[in-house]
Amino acid sequence: MTAFRKRCAALAEHSTFTTIIIILIIFNAVLIGLETYTSIYNRYTDWFVFLDQLLLWLFTIEIMIRLIGSSSLKSFFSEPWNIFDFVIVASGHLFVGGHYVTVLRILRVLRVLRAISIIPSLRKMVNALLMTIPSMGTIMLLLGIFFYIYGVIGTTLFKSIAPEYFGTLHDSLLSLFQVVTLESWASGVMRPILAEDPTAWWFFVTFILIGTFVIFNLFVGVVVTNVEEANQAENPSPTEVKINEVQKELEEIKKLLQDQKRNP
Amino acid sequence: MTAFRKRCAALAEHSTFTTIIIILIIFNAVLIGLETYTSIYNRYTDWFVFLDQLLLWLFTIEIMIRLIGSSSLKSFFSEPWNIFDFVIVASGHLFVGGHYVTVLRILRVLRVLRAISIIPSLRKMVNALLMTIPSMGTIMLLLGIFFYIYGVIGTTLFKSIAPEYFGTLHDSLLSLFQVVTLESWASGVMRPILAEDPTAWWFFVTFILIGTFVIFNLFVGVVVTNVEEANQAENPSPTEVKINEVQKELEEIKKLLQDQKRNP
Amino acid sequence: MTAFRKRCAALAEHSTFTTIIIILIIFNAVLIGLETYTSIYNRYTDWFVFLDQLLLWLFTIEIMIRLIGSSSLKSFFSEPWNIFDFVIVASGHLFVGGHYVTVLRILRVLRVLRAISIIPSLRKMVNALLMTIPSMGTIMLLLGIFFYIYGVIGTTLFKSIAPEYFGTLHDSLLSLFQVVTLESWASGVMRPILAEDPTAWWFFVTFILIGTFVIFNLFVGVVVTNVEEANQAENPSPTEVKINEVQKELEEIKKLLQDQKRNP
Amino acid sequence: MTAFRKRCAALAEHSTFTTIIIILIIFNAVLIGLETYTSIYNRYTDWFVFLDQLLLWLFTIEIMIRLIGSSSLKSFFSEPWNIFDFVIVASGHLFVGGHYVTVLRILRVLRVLRAISIIPSLRKMVNALLMTIPSMGTIMLLLGIFFYIYGVIGTTLFKSIAPEYFGTLHDSLLSLFQVVTLESWASGVMRPILAEDPTAWWFFVTFILIGTFVIFNLFVGVVVTNVEEANQAENPSPTEVKINEVQKELEEIKKLLQDQKRNP
Repeated sequence: MTAFRKRCAALAEHSTFTTIIIILIIFNAVLIGLETYTSIYNRYTDWFVFLDQLLLWLFTIEIMIRLIGSSSLKSFFSEPWNIFDFVIVASGHLFVGGHYVTVLRILRVLRVLRAISIIPSLRKMVNALLMTIPSMGTIMLLLGIFFYIYGVIGTTLFKSIAPEYFGTLHDSLLSLFQVVTLESWASGVMRPILAEDPTAWWFFVTFILIGTFVIFNLFVGVVVTNVEEANQAENPSPTEVKINEVQKELEEIKKLLQDQKRNP
Repeated sequence: MTAFRKRCAALAEHSTFTTIIIILIIFNAVLIGLETYTSIYNRYTDWFVFLDQLLLWLFTIEIMIRLIGSSSLKSFFSEPWNIFDFVIVASGHLFVGGHYVTVLRILRVLRVLRAISIIPSLRKMVNALLMTIPSMGTIMLLLGIFFYIYGVIGTTLFKSIAPEYFGTLHDSLLSLFQVVTLESWASGVMRPILAEDPTAWWFFVTFILIGTFVIFNLFVGVVVTNVEEANQAENPSPTEVKINEVQKELEEIKKLLQDQKRNP
Repeated sequence: MTAFRKRCAALAEHSTFTTIIIILIIFNAVLIGLETYTSIYNRYTDWFVFLDQLLLWLFTIEIMIRLIGSSSLKSFFSEPWNIFDFVIVASGHLFVGGHYVTVLRILRVLRVLRAISIIPSLRKMVNALLMTIPSMGTIMLLLGIFFYIYGVIGTTLFKSIAPEYFGTLHDSLLSLFQVVTLESWASGVMRPILAEDPTAWWFFVTFILIGTFVIFNLFVGVVVTNVEEANQAENPSPTEVKINEVQKELEEIKKLLQDQKRNP
Repeated sequence: MTAFRKRCAALAEHSTFTTIIIILIIFNAVLIGLETYTSIYNRYTDWFVFLDQLLLWLFTIEIMIRLIGSSSLKSFFSEPWNIFDFVIVASGHLFVGGHYVTVLRILRVLRVLRAISIIPSLRKMVNALLMTIPSMGTIMLLLGIFFYIYGVIGTTLFKSIAPEYFGTLHDSLLSLFQVVTLESWASGVMRPILAEDPTAWWFFVTFILIGTFVIFNLFVGVVVTNVEEANQAENPSPTEVKINEVQKELEEIKKLLQDQKRNP
């Protein structure tokens, strides 16, 4: 058994294995893309269904090989990307049947995401992006409170004037998201309301001023900090390199002085 | 009396106390959100009114406990966030009665803002944001002058061509705010004016070029400066740490040399 | 004569003098703002005309005092802000008469800009902004070439399809400016063209990708560089302060060693 | 022959030669601009055709001189900008004839790009911009995967609801590009879909949140890193200059100590 496990491990780490999987993922992506063209899909339905099943089983075999090749189940699932790969492939088997067509289709598209878990440079970049999420927690909470307060006020004030934008609290939150992206906030949302309630401008102007200011200020803060940390971690600044040299020279001088002390 | 005060102080600083207040604020937020759905509100009006009164009194008791628990009235009100909490809750009692329904409703929503004064990480973040406001004073003055000049010119030139956008000075200022956010500035505002006055493009193009340039330049300046200062204050750069080590080593070398001088 | 000149110089540098001028500029700004409201202007036309003449003469006297107070004509006009003040006020006298009403009105609004030349913090900020313009020369040239090429291609391709956007080269350049600000570039400009020429998307997509990338990349470069230089010039970093200390200590150590050499 | 080659080399490097070429490029640009005005073109068609042929031959002679003046064919074509110049001019001769009118016109516009290869400061800036492209490869791949997945999902879900935006996969990708630039994403694209499928908001909101976050985060990272590297390469920071001084002083101290050791 251990001989078989070792073989699997060697196979899973082989570069040709990875290349084949990447090619299969690209092929899978092209297939899914072609399926969206109804005329093509209708003509070759059987082929699409067959190739899809084939790819699903090839990916299943790949996961099996990597699972067997790993030292233990625990070590395999301790890597979040492996869990991701496993869930994506396993769910392909689970939702078989005519009922979950849309779910299955979306799951099949998500297989393209496996390119991220396979290609190291992509995985590194996505990991770096995911790392910035915790530091955005407080910002998100603050923005959430800010949106909620404006959402309630907006619903209270404009419910009857503009029911398509502020009819309910969830409509309001969506409209406020539209406003904070500055999309048609004046021409589409504010000006029709202004025609009925000429004092409504303060609601939109303060929301945009506070919203864009907070988002800009805090996101720039987080991003710039992350970038600088990443740069510092990767390659130390020339100043740092030189200070290391200075420290070495100081060590030499100290040794010289201590020699003098011992042998005056 | 002092025994009672000490108890209040102990209570106010207890973590369970804070947790309960946070839960009450969240409950208050949910209640206010549900109220915006007319059908729900109409069915359970009595409950909403009762729970709102209950929460108001619970918050009043909370403020009382924290007020009694503080060493003096002066020390309590020297913290701006305490004043904020006090005003929010006190105004809930003040505007009782059928007349100020909208004012009261908005005040009730603002109670959600108390989450900021209760949760330390939020309070820290908002404090940091508020600290950047003074350094934006001169920018705001400059932008104010810039908007005012373009507002007067716009009103003078386009008053009769586009009364809905440039009919009065305050209309113009609102339209210019819309233009600087780049929302429908061409399709909605400029092109209809251009149809009547083909030379009007210089007004909008120069306004956008100067406006976005000034805002971008100055805000980026303020934000980047603040971020770097905050980063430097929190954790010193590796270079700084190393220079401290260099300084220590120099001190040692100096001592060695001074020893030599004294005992040659 | 020199006694009179000295008096003028003392007066021009007095803080009360500056305060009065700032108040007059604010009063002038309010007056110009009120004039835009036709009903108010029609009722008090005489007052507006009288106060405007009064303010013009007060500003003229101010410039005279500062001109006489300065050591020489040359030194007065060597400061660009003085030239600015002089031109603004002098042109008020030049364009008198019924013919240049619009020119005169715009010139009167520009008097508000004198607030920048009077208030030191504003003047400093605008000077800093103007300093960044030379370093943007090459960017502007590059963007100019980029706009011109796309303008000519756009006019050639879409002249007959969308004459309102790409009828002539100058129309095209204005439309491209609209596109680069991302305002209605798809809904207003591209999609109607796409209906006639389905391959036109490459024109807009490449223009936006290159345009926003170049602008973002180069402007961020210039702004970040300027901000960092300004920060470094104003207050040296803690690292710099410490290196100065290190240098001083090294000097001391060197002295100690040279003493040893001389008196072994 | 070598005498002739040397003369060509001297001519190609002469500043007057460069100035003449720049003037010819500007003249060419003006000509191409004027051609877009149909009335002017129709009146002076012969002149335009003649001047265009003249300019093409002048540019051909210029390339010939520079080609002969360079030490070898290989060294000439090792500089990418020379290849660029050669291709632009050579293609002018290739596509002669009535068939490729549009191709020829666009090629003639691209001659304006030669200003970049001639003016050193522009060439330097464009080189710097092109250098940032490799570091954007992984970002582009990630964004490509992200767009593709949302494109397939969008086509699957909204094909029948909004065929003008999500009819086919390539339509969807164009619409998603429009959405990520925040242009009419709500008023034009989402709200009509929302009227039929009220749950569709998650598609647009998540796409915008992820899309703008990823683009903002990664581009800011690349740009800030590049800017800082460029600044560091051009002029070392004051800290770096001082550390160099510190190192020199340490060298002196070490020499003093080693002298002491040798001659105690």
